[in-house]
Amino acid sequence: MRATLMYGAGDVRVETIADPTIQQPTDAVVRVVRACVCGSDLHPYRNLPAREQGQQMGHEFLGVVEQTGADVTIVRVGDLVVASFSYQDNTCEFCRAGVQTACVHGGFFSAAQAELVRVPLADGTLVTLPVGADSELLPSLLTLADVYGTGYHAAKRANVGAGDTVAVVGDGAVGLLAVLSATRLGAERIILMGRHKMRTDLGREFGATDVVAERGEEGIALVCDLTDGGAPKVLEAVGHRPAYDQAVGIVRAGGVISRVGVPQYEEAPVGFGSLFGRNITLNGGPAPVRAYIDDLLPGILDGTVDPGRVFDRTAPLDEVPAAYRAMDNREALKVLVTF
Amino acid sequence: MRATLMYGAGDVRVETIADPTIQQPTDAVVRVVRACVCGSDLHPYRNLPAREQGQQMGHEFLGVVEQTGADVTIVRVGDLVVASFSYQDNTCEFCRAGVQTACVHGGFFSAAQAELVRVPLADGTLVTLPVGADSELLPSLLTLADVYGTGYHAAKRANVGAGDTVAVVGDGAVGLLAVLSATRLGAERIILMGRHKMRTDLGREFGATDVVAERGEEGIALVCDLTDGGAPKVLEAVGHRPAYDQAVGIVRAGGVISRVGVPQYEEAPVGFGSLFGRNITLNGGPAPVRAYIDDLLPGILDGTVDPGRVFDRTAPLDEVPAAYRAMDNREALKVLVTF
Repeated sequence: MRATLMYGAGDVRVETIADPTIQQPTDAVVRVVRACVCGSDLHPYRNLPAREQGQQMGHEFLGVVEQTGADVTIVRVGDLVVASFSYQDNTCEFCRAGVQTACVHGGFFSAAQAELVRVPLADGTLVTLPVGADSELLPSLLTLADVYGTGYHAAKRANVGAGDTVAVVGDGAVGLLAVLSATRLGAERIILMGRHKMRTDLGREFGATDVVAERGEEGIALVCDLTDGGAPKVLEAVGHRPAYDQAVGIVRAGGVISRVGVPQYEEAPVGFGSLFGRNITLNGGPAPVRAYIDDLLPGILDGTVDPGRVFDRTAPLDEVPAAYRAMDNREALKVLVTF
Repeated sequence: MRATLMYGAGDVRVETIADPTIQQPTDAVVRVVRACVCGSDLHPYRNLPAREQGQQMGHEFLGVVEQTGADVTIVRVGDLVVASFSYQDNTCEFCRAGVQTACVHGGFFSAAQAELVRVPLADGTLVTLPVGADSELLPSLLTLADVYGTGYHAAKRANVGAGDTVAVVGDGAVGLLAVLSATRLGAERIILMGRHKMRTDLGREFGATDVVAERGEEGIALVCDLTDGGAPKVLEAVGHRPAYDQAVGIVRAGGVISRVGVPQYEEAPVGFGSLFGRNITLNGGPAPVRAYIDDLLPGILDGTVDPGRVFDRTAPLDEVPAAYRAMDNREALKVLVTF
């Protein structure tokens, strides 16, 4: 099959490699219909040390089940399915508590920008979609694999509800879908911090009431001014330390910072001068998107929302290297990969 | 009046200084009946640079209202009152949200180990007690000023409820009262991490079901073993970095670390390997104990609980320097100051 491999920072290639096969009776193999490049793929694209053996890339896909192991009983060959970016049994203590990304048998996909994907724990990981493989809803359905569920996780962990004032740090796909999620959960005021006008314009369409393009101290001052002292709920959808610092700067006393951008730092301020002194809650993490598919699927199917609008470019698999480049250069927000 | 002043690390003196007076119409002056030394007073006792001019100390007191400003309408001269360690108007947005320690007009007491204390915002800060100044309940009532409310804050911010498994890091007065609070909120299993047997014995009387004396990796392994992978709710009542690291080590995926020990560090791990990867919530802060007095007072008055047991020594004001020394040496858990 053809698959995407990364050989180091800036070095993405599409090559022919061996097809994946069923290895465990709970596995399935899915023929990918749509995949995409994630903002988090850009972290290794910028930093991965060069290597002889390329590593496969990608964790977002939907496709058609091609084979199933003997113990797979829910999904069937021929089903059009979407996978969460984590795989999980969906039955363990953590899955039942809605933290599927901590499943005791689970893990994360890392080889989905390819024609075929082996899916461990297929019954806990794949959700059958009630549409055909030619549906025009495929882009929006694909966002259930990660970015929509991740934006929703940010909003849910911040307990966003009716009438809330929310600030979203970051105008990538996750930030924009955090805006959409906050809108759907009833937020009254949503301040989007981002400086790419085409993106923040989409953010406004998703429900952002204010856009702050400034960063650093200037951006903090503007948000604090707009909110008379800070936003009670801050959704951080970037993952870099400046975004964390921004979140700390704009959060209101007693408020919450909900992070879904994968942190590119380990240590950060949490002491009296940052979180503790003002009773700030810090939470978030890798989104248990499997838990949210049931919540989010109906709104896509009935046309209430169109999260697939975050895809502003489409490319066939062989053009994935250019897709990474375009996203890294901020020429593209998010690239949909077709097969 | 006589008052406690600190002139540097290890240098506490009781001296005669000018009496405090009413400065604002919302002030009161209280004649102190009971005060005490706090574990957090030991931080400057160990670290305060030497100074010519001593700084007054103390933030926990109960006493009798001696004077009130013209705008004080709720508390009256002659009332026996307890103060929260923060002063606040108790009417602003943050107070109404239960974050009194972020009151827009508020601040913290720092001169309560003295015969008289000026109380700003007296109506929002003082609570009249329905007992006499000779009540045997005074030690327990004094814990409402800080340590009981602070332990309770830890448990409340961790949302401790019926059937929960909770781990408490620290066997100081706050840790022990976090145990008592968790017990009162219905926790089924309470693991107390502490290595001072007299303290942990009191912790068992307050409801701890297990005691882990080991620290560091060994302590983490023991708690993870006892809980089959970590405690869902961790109450951190120390404030030093090793206690934070311990909390991160013993918290279960999807769980919460609720801090009430005043952090003696600013940066700490919060990234993928510590909090983010397992969707851990970090919260807590200076306790809005004013908000909790109404919850906690009835149980003291009716004898259900006796949080005053954390006082294991009593000293008159002139012996406060020895009280600091005894607490610093771990000879005393918490010293009650009489007048």
